[in-house]
Amino acid sequence: MTQLLAISAGDPAGIGPEIIGKSWEERAAQSLPAFFAIGDPRAFAAVWNGPVQVIGEPSEAAEHFARALPVLPVIDSGGVVPGEPDLDGARCALQALEMGVGLARAGTVCAIVTGPISKIQLQKVGFNFPGQTEFIAEACGVSRQNVAMLLAGPDLRVVPITVHIGIAAVPAALSIELIVNRARAAAKGMARNFGIDRPRLAIAGLNPHAGEQGSMGSEEAEIIIPAIEILREEGFLVAGPLPADTMFHAAARARYDVALCQYHDQALIPIKALNFDDAVNMTLGLPIVRTSPDHGTAFDIAGKGIASPRSMIAAIRMAGAAWQHRQTYEG
Amino acid sequence: MTQLLAISAGDPAGIGPEIIGKSWEERAAQSLPAFFAIGDPRAFAAVWNGPVQVIGEPSEAAEHFARALPVLPVIDSGGVVPGEPDLDGARCALQALEMGVGLARAGTVCAIVTGPISKIQLQKVGFNFPGQTEFIAEACGVSRQNVAMLLAGPDLRVVPITVHIGIAAVPAALSIELIVNRARAAAKGMARNFGIDRPRLAIAGLNPHAGEQGSMGSEEAEIIIPAIEILREEGFLVAGPLPADTMFHAAARARYDVALCQYHDQALIPIKALNFDDAVNMTLGLPIVRTSPDHGTAFDIAGKGIASPRSMIAAIRMAGAAWQHRQTYEG
Repeated sequence: MTQLLAISAGDPAGIGPEIIGKSWEERAAQSLPAFFAIGDPRAFAAVWNGPVQVIGEPSEAAEHFARALPVLPVIDSGGVVPGEPDLDGARCALQALEMGVGLARAGTVCAIVTGPISKIQLQKVGFNFPGQTEFIAEACGVSRQNVAMLLAGPDLRVVPITVHIGIAAVPAALSIELIVNRARAAAKGMARNFGIDRPRLAIAGLNPHAGEQGSMGSEEAEIIIPAIEILREEGFLVAGPLPADTMFHAAARARYDVALCQYHDQALIPIKALNFDDAVNMTLGLPIVRTSPDHGTAFDIAGKGIASPRSMIAAIRMAGAAWQHRQTYEG
Repeated sequence: MTQLLAISAGDPAGIGPEIIGKSWEERAAQSLPAFFAIGDPRAFAAVWNGPVQVIGEPSEAAEHFARALPVLPVIDSGGVVPGEPDLDGARCALQALEMGVGLARAGTVCAIVTGPISKIQLQKVGFNFPGQTEFIAEACGVSRQNVAMLLAGPDLRVVPITVHIGIAAVPAALSIELIVNRARAAAKGMARNFGIDRPRLAIAGLNPHAGEQGSMGSEEAEIIIPAIEILREEGFLVAGPLPADTMFHAAARARYDVALCQYHDQALIPIKALNFDDAVNMTLGLPIVRTSPDHGTAFDIAGKGIASPRSMIAAIRMAGAAWQHRQTYEG
């Protein structure tokens, strides 16, 4: 298969169409693999002055990519107004996501990059998942426990073990099994998608100073250390539990390939402090390659021409590289 | 009063004596204010080849500072072995801390910089406080609720609202009163010690995405927002509750002078990711100026000559600057 990526446009009233167009402009300068967008062609024309080529099927994308952004159309959005999401736009976003995942599952494209959607909008049109990641996992027949959300930037890769739950719910949500599953997905994901065959995992403690010998919390002794012992018995290279505050400076980061964090902000604070503009979200544990930019729809700046395509460009490049690594992966 | 600082040496088996000696070597290059150390002179000689001048009282320090590190002696440590803390060393560390605080309280010195101690060692000799900060607060007659721990580096200033407790205990430890008290201490501390008369405070949410309208935790609505409303009524400039993951990149940091964080790692992850080597710990809310380097005793590298004095140098400089700001503060 030649390398061809599909990008679902996300909510047409968000910044998705604009940053996809801007990414296409940078295709040569950034050496991006060929891609096409899935969405409403009018949403692109509304916010971007570049050339759009409507295509009837993915195989037509390659011949047009050099001269225009190929767009595989979905249902008509009814004329989108940037910054004003509506139900027709949400239906567009959902159809684009479904098509993209289907094409990746079928091997028609080598990866899917998903543009930003609004969960609140999608839920209004019957979408019943916490986010795109869980939808894609189910579409691929993979349990949510066995996928992992990776945030990857030039300086750091992090996997949150628990994600979108309140802090008070985190201790009870952690389990030996969950940590082991996420770590396995992270390790396999490093090998398949990044070519790191023996990845070094760093696992954060939950509590300050990783609990300081139990004086500030028992989760390290009861959950995290037993999980680490299982992982080591399975042959993984694991450091931890590490005090979270001292594991993200440059010298500490050099000692591992991916950090597993116990909760959302423990992972996202350092990656966004260090790589705010060019971090990428990749789902590990799927049979397909899936990345997305690490930001939302940004309805407040949609249509103003000021949205940065840096994270989208990084997501496209990372998806292409991951697919290439998978061609040589034996696992 | 001419500017003279006291530095308590901390545990003599830790890196304190070495980094104080190295800081003295840099006194001219770094334009440091005059200072003297309080500790066992033998602990300095054991790890540092520079000139030590034992002094009988603080007033003798100024005349010697240009040519030697003045050291005001405490009880004999019995001959310290770097990296091997013992009870005599802990007694030295405690006496140095007590002397330094007393001299600052009396106005004999304009600030105290505290070298790193081992809490475990100090507790063996009767020290009954969670850390040096609480000891100093009590010595100054200030309630623990009314002081605040500031971590300040070149890129960021953060105040943790709760500090050394496990994550599971954080939600119950937060209260409107505590947040308001810490924010007041932070605001007043910015004015007194940094010359920022109308500081812009940023207050983090507790939960991912600051709770996302209550879908991931209720503490924002029940505790943090009411605290912010009280602070605004009192005239403070406050933004929040902000999603913690998007408040520490460069553009976000430019919008505030100090960030208040709900728990230890929410504050310490970003400051140590960004300013690992030169962050300083300052206690706000005290009648005296107190800073310390933002690291521990590092017994594992003590006596090897490889400890970095950067955080100690930054702590000395920040203490000197804070004292100068206080000379002109009207509050």
